Amino acid sequence: MRASKYLIATVKETPADAVVVSHKLMLRAGMIRKLASGLYSWLPTGLKVLRKVERIVREEMDRAGAQEVLMPCVQPAELWQESGRWDEMGALMMHMKDRHERDFVFGPTHEEVITDIARNELTSYKQLPATFYQIQTKFRDEFRPRFGVMRAREFTMKDAYSFHITQDSLQGEYENMYQAYCRIFDRLGLDYRPVLADTGAMGGKASHEFQVLAESGEDYIAFSDSSDYAANIEMAEAVMPATQRGEPTEALRLVDTPNARTIADLVNDYDLPIEKTIKTLVVEAEEDVEAGLIALIVRGDHELNEVKAEKLPQVKAPLTMATEEQIRAAIGAGPGSLGPVKMPIPMIVDRAVSVMSDFGGGANVDDKHYFGINWERDVALPEVADLRSVQAGEPSPDGQGTLQIKKGIEVGHIFQLGNKYAKALNATVLDENGKGQTMIMGCYGIGVSRIVAAAIEQNHDDNGIIWPDAIAPFHVGIVPLNAHKSPEVMEVAEKLYADLQAAGLEVLLDDRDKKTSPGVKFADMELLGIPHRIVVSDRGLADGQLEYKARGAEDKEPLPLAEAVDFIRNRVKVQ
Amino acid sequence: MRASKYLIATVKETPADAVVVSHKLMLRAGMIRKLASGLYSWLPTGLKVLRKVERIVREEMDRAGAQEVLMPCVQPAELWQESGRWDEMGALMMHMKDRHERDFVFGPTHEEVITDIARNELTSYKQLPATFYQIQTKFRDEFRPRFGVMRAREFTMKDAYSFHITQDSLQGEYENMYQAYCRIFDRLGLDYRPVLADTGAMGGKASHEFQVLAESGEDYIAFSDSSDYAANIEMAEAVMPATQRGEPTEALRLVDTPNARTIADLVNDYDLPIEKTIKTLVVEAEEDVEAGLIALIVRGDHELNEVKAEKLPQVKAPLTMATEEQIRAAIGAGPGSLGPVKMPIPMIVDRAVSVMSDFGGGANVDDKHYFGINWERDVALPEVADLRSVQAGEPSPDGQGTLQIKKGIEVGHIFQLGNKYAKALNATVLDENGKGQTMIMGCYGIGVSRIVAAAIEQNHDDNGIIWPDAIAPFHVGIVPLNAHKSPEVMEVAEKLYADLQAAGLEVLLDDRDKKTSPGVKFADMELLGIPHRIVVSDRGLADGQLEYKARGAEDKEPLPLAEAVDFIRNRVKVQ
Repeated sequence: MRASKYLIATVKETPADAVVVSHKLMLRAGMIRKLASGLYSWLPTGLKVLRKVERIVREEMDRAGAQEVLMPCVQPAELWQESGRWDEMGALMMHMKDRHERDFVFGPTHEEVITDIARNELTSYKQLPATFYQIQTKFRDEFRPRFGVMRAREFTMKDAYSFHITQDSLQGEYENMYQAYCRIFDRLGLDYRPVLADTGAMGGKASHEFQVLAESGEDYIAFSDSSDYAANIEMAEAVMPATQRGEPTEALRLVDTPNARTIADLVNDYDLPIEKTIKTLVVEAEEDVEAGLIALIVRGDHELNEVKAEKLPQVKAPLTMATEEQIRAAIGAGPGSLGPVKMPIPMIVDRAVSVMSDFGGGANVDDKHYFGINWERDVALPEVADLRSVQAGEPSPDGQGTLQIKKGIEVGHIFQLGNKYAKALNATVLDENGKGQTMIMGCYGIGVSRIVAAAIEQNHDDNGIIWPDAIAPFHVGIVPLNAHKSPEVMEVAEKLYADLQAAGLEVLLDDRDKKTSPGVKFADMELLGIPHRIVVSDRGLADGQLEYKARGAEDKEPLPLAEAVDFIRNRVKVQ
Repeated sequence: MRASKYLIATVKETPADAVVVSHKLMLRAGMIRKLASGLYSWLPTGLKVLRKVERIVREEMDRAGAQEVLMPCVQPAELWQESGRWDEMGALMMHMKDRHERDFVFGPTHEEVITDIARNELTSYKQLPATFYQIQTKFRDEFRPRFGVMRAREFTMKDAYSFHITQDSLQGEYENMYQAYCRIFDRLGLDYRPVLADTGAMGGKASHEFQVLAESGEDYIAFSDSSDYAANIEMAEAVMPATQRGEPTEALRLVDTPNARTIADLVNDYDLPIEKTIKTLVVEAEEDVEAGLIALIVRGDHELNEVKAEKLPQVKAPLTMATEEQIRAAIGAGPGSLGPVKMPIPMIVDRAVSVMSDFGGGANVDDKHYFGINWERDVALPEVADLRSVQAGEPSPDGQGTLQIKKGIEVGHIFQLGNKYAKALNATVLDENGKGQTMIMGCYGIGVSRIVAAAIEQNHDDNGIIWPDAIAPFHVGIVPLNAHKSPEVMEVAEKLYADLQAAGLEVLLDDRDKKTSPGVKFADMELLGIPHRIVVSDRGLADGQLEYKARGAEDKEPLPLAEAVDFIRNRVKVQ
């Protein structure tokens, strides 16, 4: 591509309403433009990247044996009523009425439509397993769209759905998709982790998120420094401490603690190490718990993990913290003075708490604490469970290495759905015995447009984007210096442009005239994130040299003209 | 692809609600499924074809220098209000309100959005000309969607828009796009004609439609048997007859014609050759015509062309036929008794009428006609114009050959838009003198999903679809006969499958088990329209032979096994 014939819509100013780096850089590099809140037009440079991501996703889906389909954006209300999600989705769905006053939505997802197709087209177990995917535009009417295409209202997704009648078959396809996702993110050139994820309200059997690691991520993920173990922080197991509980060395003391309502108060005012403190949190219990409430206890320096807590059979879902009023009525003290000794309601303690000794905790009387508490001597050890979020440096639950914690951006999600939709829509096939069986499903999503933003969050510097070769809008940029003064410079640049293209590379030749200064051309190449840059100058050519710079590298290097094409072809990494 | 792992969703029965062949065959071949009125899901076989059409369109747009962008489906009302089309489009636009009660539409077209982008991104004449295109989903809420994807509500279009400040530049890009469109339809392997089209209410300078010839087309097109001339019937010029007007041979006679109100009555009851009759039609006139009405006269065997009539400066647009009441008030006779002699309102006569002599026409008195009318002797020859539609066999307006008339399906349309949108949205650039200039635009559409249906309308027989190689879902089908009885048959079929794929061809191997009979397999191959079929059988292999059949051909032919791959590779025509 010649820059003179191409919309280089770079801008110097950082747009006012952009908060995250990828949003700022996509606007500055002229990749996208905002049409309305959460609605973006993709300009040529942005679309080139989006299409490359699409292509890699499509190739790997095809390779994995998934069959591509395309379902409409606009979906009739009836299917959503049939699945029971018409009300559930609420304002997140963009509703519309056609000229005959029939209700439709702009599909936020396609489980209903694919299940409708499956119930009509799949009739026999012999057609299973079958996996269908599409790359399609979706719409979610977010209350507050933000971060550019990271959380836009209209966006491109790859969604795939598999159909089975046995859990084994579903498990097999789940693993097949897991591998396909790894190939996709490997090929995209991104640093990512597949992490165990919560199956949540959908109640499926297994789920992994694919997280692109980036400082600006909103999700925390824990992973081993020595193995493949990785999990969403909500799911990462905090293992039973290897150390045994210490023997009691202190007597139990009831202490007046008039102003101590928080862990910090105890640590500061009573000289208690934080590892010797506990937090006692009271939540609503399931109906069969007589007290109606249950106390959950974690160490003072740990955090209750609400996802783990909600999964406990005694705890009511969704997790609901008790009010001070409820707590006082049940326990007789306020939330700042609770503890295990003489606790009148059932308790569950975290694994780390179960090995504490000589620790302090509320006395279940306002303004009083017990110090020197020891399990079994002062109070029976209640049920022990994994209640807290892991912290960096803890042992990995698979027994290999220690956990690190990083932030990630969720770009993919695979999920064993079970029979939720097939049951609601009565999608059955005949099994080997000629009996109707409700199918079970897996679903597998990739946020195609979000990947573009996530790649930038992971790969940028102060000057702009640093694209992985596989999804760069152009592999190589050529900057001819002062070409208006030297016909030779432009000749060499043109020949290089032709030769590199003939070698199968995508090249941006900055042939803009002298009104665009070399400084602006260099800045644009950096901002656009073109991974390989060649400068053609009079001075260099005098010695038969070009100048090469990799986008991420510190230094330029001389490049003999004769070797340029081979050099670049070897440098560009595109699988 | 192995048929055993692929959704072959063929059905025998012709679906009840499908009227046209393409709709029937797309349903029967399992290419599409209806989700709701005018909304179709593309199943794997259909999507393969759609993606191939998309790819060819994209490649030729890129080659032509157009830059791909992607604009949102969902568009804010404000832009449509700014262009003045918010009300104009009416119920054809699918309206929606987001959760904040702001108005949006599912874009039926993107002139507004691209003009908004252009006014922000294009600032200097040096950036022009610039052409942007997208391949995007559009929605038109048709009152009565029909013919499957031929007139669906949700559909895929390629729309391109070019920006200029001189008519020369627009003309140049228009020709460039014209050539690109020809390359696209050539590569698609379709019999098509670029035809001159009406610029209509948009008032642009030039317009061509690209019509795929098909019996079932809704448009009539006229084209020369000896040159490139082709035009929509609305636009094809009916040239001045080469023959001079004959000298009068009859006297003017006023005849009582009590029951003659139509041409047929005159011909049958008064023995008048139809070429000696005329039709006099009265339409509303522009304001400056004092009578308020104007009479348009065509020969009895010709049809008034309403598009041509509407373009006459004296005729009010849109064309409005006068009521009997208006006619009686102005002329004193009913519509069945009108003619040129003593006509009190202005007249325009068709070219063919201007050379008539000794003809009959109404006397502008009820139940009376004049016979033996001759121009100039009995009434002055009024203004002559091209008023009628051409008929097959007439001379081509370019002077080369005679016209044929065929039916076509409009699949593309290129159009010189002028400054309508740029003016409404104030899209200007600075010219060479630093002065703001409103841009002028061209727009260039292709009905991508419609092409799939049009290709089938043009290429099918009683057994199913006959795909051109370029857009066939698979190039080659392999049918192993009774493979369960002969391991060699399956071995050869598998090797052929691998070798043909290695040669870059897309192959469907029908490896379905014996429960699928050979008859069903053959029928599916025909219905799916796979252009090249190879049968592997025990009997053939005994002589080292396969059997080859081209989908459109009558006969099968033996194919030596050793030559099969080369033979097929040479047969498949994909540019």
